[in-house]
Amino acid sequence: MSFTFDIHAKDGAARSGVISTPRGDIRTPAFMPVGTAATVKAMLPQSVRETGADIVLGNTYHLMLRPGAERIARLGGLHTFMGWERPILTDSGGFQVMSLSQLRKISEDGVRFRSHIDGAEEFLSPERAMEIQRLLGSDIQMVLDECPAFPADEAQIEKSLALSMRWAARSKAAFGEQPGHACFGIVQGGIYPHLRRRSADELREIGFDGYAVGGLAVGEGQGAMFDVLDATVCHLPEDRPHYLMGVGKPDDIAGAVLRGIDMFDCVLPTRSGRNGQAFTRNGALNLRNARHAEDTAPLDPACRCPACRQFSRAYLHHVVKANEIIASMLLSWHNLAYYQDLMADLRAAIAEGTLAACAEKVFTAYARSAESSAGA
Amino acid sequence: MSFTFDIHAKDGAARSGVISTPRGDIRTPAFMPVGTAATVKAMLPQSVRETGADIVLGNTYHLMLRPGAERIARLGGLHTFMGWERPILTDSGGFQVMSLSQLRKISEDGVRFRSHIDGAEEFLSPERAMEIQRLLGSDIQMVLDECPAFPADEAQIEKSLALSMRWAARSKAAFGEQPGHACFGIVQGGIYPHLRRRSADELREIGFDGYAVGGLAVGEGQGAMFDVLDATVCHLPEDRPHYLMGVGKPDDIAGAVLRGIDMFDCVLPTRSGRNGQAFTRNGALNLRNARHAEDTAPLDPACRCPACRQFSRAYLHHVVKANEIIASMLLSWHNLAYYQDLMADLRAAIAEGTLAACAEKVFTAYARSAESSAGA
Repeated sequence: MSFTFDIHAKDGAARSGVISTPRGDIRTPAFMPVGTAATVKAMLPQSVRETGADIVLGNTYHLMLRPGAERIARLGGLHTFMGWERPILTDSGGFQVMSLSQLRKISEDGVRFRSHIDGAEEFLSPERAMEIQRLLGSDIQMVLDECPAFPADEAQIEKSLALSMRWAARSKAAFGEQPGHACFGIVQGGIYPHLRRRSADELREIGFDGYAVGGLAVGEGQGAMFDVLDATVCHLPEDRPHYLMGVGKPDDIAGAVLRGIDMFDCVLPTRSGRNGQAFTRNGALNLRNARHAEDTAPLDPACRCPACRQFSRAYLHHVVKANEIIASMLLSWHNLAYYQDLMADLRAAIAEGTLAACAEKVFTAYARSAESSAGA
Repeated sequence: MSFTFDIHAKDGAARSGVISTPRGDIRTPAFMPVGTAATVKAMLPQSVRETGADIVLGNTYHLMLRPGAERIARLGGLHTFMGWERPILTDSGGFQVMSLSQLRKISEDGVRFRSHIDGAEEFLSPERAMEIQRLLGSDIQMVLDECPAFPADEAQIEKSLALSMRWAARSKAAFGEQPGHACFGIVQGGIYPHLRRRSADELREIGFDGYAVGGLAVGEGQGAMFDVLDATVCHLPEDRPHYLMGVGKPDDIAGAVLRGIDMFDCVLPTRSGRNGQAFTRNGALNLRNARHAEDTAPLDPACRCPACRQFSRAYLHHVVKANEIIASMLLSWHNLAYYQDLMADLRAAIAEGTLAACAEKVFTAYARSAESSAGA
């Protein structure tokens, strides 16, 4: 069986369809919960599946440091190890090396850094990043790229982009032939349309199974992000999946789907859940807020997750205040269920040609959120 | 419907049977998971039920401080609040006032103390302890007792016991008539057989629906605890449930069942689970130990919990080391499943007249535990 992408419906630039892999189908537009260290935090794998997730993301950086890629391979691969038999996408580690590790030194060859766990010296090259992802058994493997800090001037971005494109070619070569598995390139180029276009063109030249847009959601703001998508997605092959990395809030996702993005990942639903914040059809809520203390209503009456079916806002307020683990469990579950429901709504709207109205509802709900932002 | 206790089988001093309440039956000997702050830590209520639990325990001390008994009553009672519709036993708060609160001052009237959460001054009397438990809607309500620190000399214990017995009479009067609900007395008396007997006699005189043995598992050791049970249980009404409070390790439970105890509660399975420790049919394991790092075997092949059915010891080792919430979730679930399986084995052995052999297996497994004690 091979890796395929079929588009079933279009609405403007937006598309809905199915990515097929030997480990199962991925309905697009898709949201991928983040399973950093071989666990979607505070969730059992079957619960992740119950929310409607077809695929999860694993982090090369975290897994290479602990428990180690070779160890996971000896234990039968990441799917078996973490009890998730459906597709897994792994990032290449590039973003976390830049954001988490210490004493980074980037050369043409790769990046040398120290582990944030124990300070051990580590090295990641395009070849090693792909080797790790192969050892993990990842279904969708990402090229190693350099992730420049934001803001950066045009000259810095151009130089970084050139390195990322050379690394992309080396990553693709290292990926080799893995039937049923996919290798995705990553468009960089900051907020500069001509650099984004150059990056897209160079990646098409190399040829990938899918195309990601990287280097966004790093502080540029939603307007700038949408501008970059407008200037980038049109240069990506239409018949391949388009993946916006690390995004985002519900309204970010709705806006990106309108612009032709098919795949998303973000820590926001789980991280916010652990911080007492909930996403609902009426915007974000902070369960720590005292106004929930005697509210017997469910978090979101339209939601079918256990937090909404079995508990009141008053209970969620209590367990958030008391720092009980069940608060993280219930709010992570709810937020992931909300995100999957959102993706299902967006897919249905694309099929019905009503995406603009569907997205507008999300924009309205998140523009009027009465409570503190659920931002990451 | 009323509160009843029927003994179905006996084996020596041990009994198996059923406590019936309007909220459901409790198979005895029973283990009650501890749901301190309206949650069995790291567990959803349906998961607690799936382990085989018929009843959970709630802590009056914690709930009176946060979110407050009157608030829980306004929200429909503790069962509705925490999503557990089966029986709940609540303690009276006496033990936690002694172990957790600050600046305690005990008088004939009750105990004045400061909350460990915010330092607020609080007061607990027998009447208030019973009022709180009634507001919570507790099915089995415990009298307020004084819990002397261990060790204490005979004169101290005798004085404390006298106060506890006066408080027991006041608690029973405050409990009043609550059809379908039960009020249990608590035998005190330290390690002094004649004081334990005096306490049992005085409680029988007052008349309770069940009889607890308190003031044990406070540092006296297993041998002394069993001696106290030998000197106490024979003085309790045979036709009422006997409850050993706050106990214990699997071998403590087996030994107490042999001595005629019907009910247990303990934080050990959940607290140990959060600390990376597991109870198995072959003794206790510390999952943090490096020898599990590449062990693809399940924690306990005879166990049907998700930790054992879906994950390897290697995975559990990884998530314990990485401090992932799923480690607490899986190990709490496993430990509670093990405890419920243990109770089912003990009940079956009593029915078959093979309790001595069944208990011996538990003693052997826990005597030879290869790894660090899973003690609280």
